[in-house]
Amino acid sequence: MASTILPLELIDRCIGSKIWVIMKSDREFTGTLMGFDDFVNMVLTDVTEYQVTEDGIVSNSLGKTLLNGSNIAMLIPGGEGPEKAES
Amino acid sequence: MASTILPLELIDRCIGSKIWVIMKSDREFTGTLMGFDDFVNMVLTDVTEYQVTEDGIVSNSLGKTLLNGSNIAMLIPGGEGPEKAES
Amino acid sequence: MASTILPLELIDRCIGSKIWVIMKSDREFTGTLMGFDDFVNMVLTDVTEYQVTEDGIVSNSLGKTLLNGSNIAMLIPGGEGPEKAES
Amino acid sequence: MASTILPLELIDRCIGSKIWVIMKSDREFTGTLMGFDDFVNMVLTDVTEYQVTEDGIVSNSLGKTLLNGSNIAMLIPGGEGPEKAES
Amino acid sequence: MASTILPLELIDRCIGSKIWVIMKSDREFTGTLMGFDDFVNMVLTDVTEYQVTEDGIVSNSLGKTLLNGSNIAMLIPGGEGPEKAES
Amino acid sequence: MASTILPLELIDRCIGSKIWVIMKSDREFTGTLMGFDDFVNMVLTDVTEYQVTEDGIVSNSLGKTLLNGSNIAMLIPGGEGPEKAES
Amino acid sequence: MASTILPLELIDRCIGSKIWVIMKSDREFTGTLMGFDDFVNMVLTDVTEYQVTEDGIVSNSLGKTLLNGSNIAMLIPGGEGPEKAES
Repeated sequence: MASTILPLELIDRCIGSKIWVIMKSDREFTGTLMGFDDFVNMVLTDVTEYQVTEDGIVSNSLGKTLLNGSNIAMLIPGGEGPEKAES
Repeated sequence: MASTILPLELIDRCIGSKIWVIMKSDREFTGTLMGFDDFVNMVLTDVTEYQVTEDGIVSNSLGKTLLNGSNIAMLIPGGEGPEKAES
Repeated sequence: MASTILPLELIDRCIGSKIWVIMKSDREFTGTLMGFDDFVNMVLTDVTEYQVTEDGIVSNSLGKTLLNGSNIAMLIPGGEGPEKAES
Repeated sequence: MASTILPLELIDRCIGSKIWVIMKSDREFTGTLMGFDDFVNMVLTDVTEYQVTEDGIVSNSLGKTLLNGSNIAMLIPGGEGPEKAES
Repeated sequence: MASTILPLELIDRCIGSKIWVIMKSDREFTGTLMGFDDFVNMVLTDVTEYQVTEDGIVSNSLGKTLLNGSNIAMLIPGGEGPEKAES
Repeated sequence: MASTILPLELIDRCIGSKIWVIMKSDREFTGTLMGFDDFVNMVLTDVTEYQVTEDGIVSNSLGKTLLNGSNIAMLIPGGEGPEKAES
Repeated sequence: MASTILPLELIDRCIGSKIWVIMKSDREFTGTLMGFDDFVNMVLTDVTEYQVTEDGIVSNSLGKTLLNGSNIAMLIPGGEGPEKAES
């Protein structure tokens, strides 16, 4: 049976790698995880934001960014963002 | 009389098996449960996301995913997702 | 005077019997209560979900289900669900 | 000067009598209060639900009901519900 | 310099007098404050509710009422309600 | 380097002076701060409320007012309100 | 491997420098960070607010401002605001 992985363990393993974060407000980001705290507030670098518009997905570079953990709906380790997910 | 099952007990029994998760935002996922914590944050693998669109249900593979427990409305052990539920 | 009943007492008495649960998101379920915890997270079995659509009430079988207590608006012991309530 | 009444004192005095409860979701109920807890979760019996529709107020009998205190906006001891309030 | 007044001090001074309460849901009430607790749940008597409709402000008498403190946006000691405020 | 100012320090310095408060519900007020507590519930006096309508900004005098801290989005010490900000 | 940065560490490093803050209500600000507390309530000075309107982005100077931490969705150290991000 596959070993159990606790949520904070999974996030800890993502430090230094790319993750895809989806907020409760439906904003989406990819970036490299640099750190997080017990509230799952996250520091990402090399951040790209994706906004779903009528003309398709628009992406936007933001550099280093801090995301409020209480606003995060889900995260995907190694995720490439919505563009790659749908292509 | 059927024995009583506590919520965290039920989730614990799901580790290693498929579950169907419905979020407060109406996003729906199926995947194999790998772990969870006291806030019912969940690590799933082999994840499929279902989005109800005008053209019916669109599904999308996401791989390993962490879901924020505060955003989960309900979960169905062994659930196959909306497609199977309605077919 | 009718004796006082505390909320958790009422729920405890429902274990093993049918209840009708209405969520803050207006989703409605009936099912047999198998267990609950202090946050009123609930494990139900033989679950039917009711969705109010333009064509009337559509019901859908879900089997065993865990409901997030923070999302429950109200519950009706022995309730038969919206169809019976309105017929 | 009229004596001061604390909120939980007021509710305690309502046990065994009719009250009108209005939820944050605008759902409205009358019923006899059978019990409540520190979170103001409430057990009511002989419950009538009122729904404001385009054709006026529709009422619906529900029997014994548990209301989630965090969803209650206001309550009116001895209240007869919206119909009486407006007639 | 005018002396400092703490919020709960201000409410305490209002006991026995008229106040205007505006809820987060935009419902508005005036009434005489009879008591309150640490969560600013409030007992009012001689209560009038004001609803802003297309035809202007409609008022409605409710008698004694308990308001859920978590739903209160603001309160105005001695306030006469929206009608007086706009005339 | 400009000295650091902590949030509650900033508010404390505003006692006796005018501030502009914007709520999460987009209601806006100016008034003189008379006091506040740890939850940033605030007592203001000489209060003016601003409502953005199709015909522009409508202002309304409210006298002494208590604002629920959990509903405050931001505050601007010495702020004159939306009219001055946009003229 | 890049060193780990904790969220509050990142914010602490921003004291005295420009940051771009995006609220859960989609309001956006840039300004110089003067201080913050454990709830990530923030004091900014030389603040500009950006509002996305049909005619494009409108900016507005606000001077010193206190932002409620519970309403902050994300922040970008050194961020120049939406105008620069999209040009």
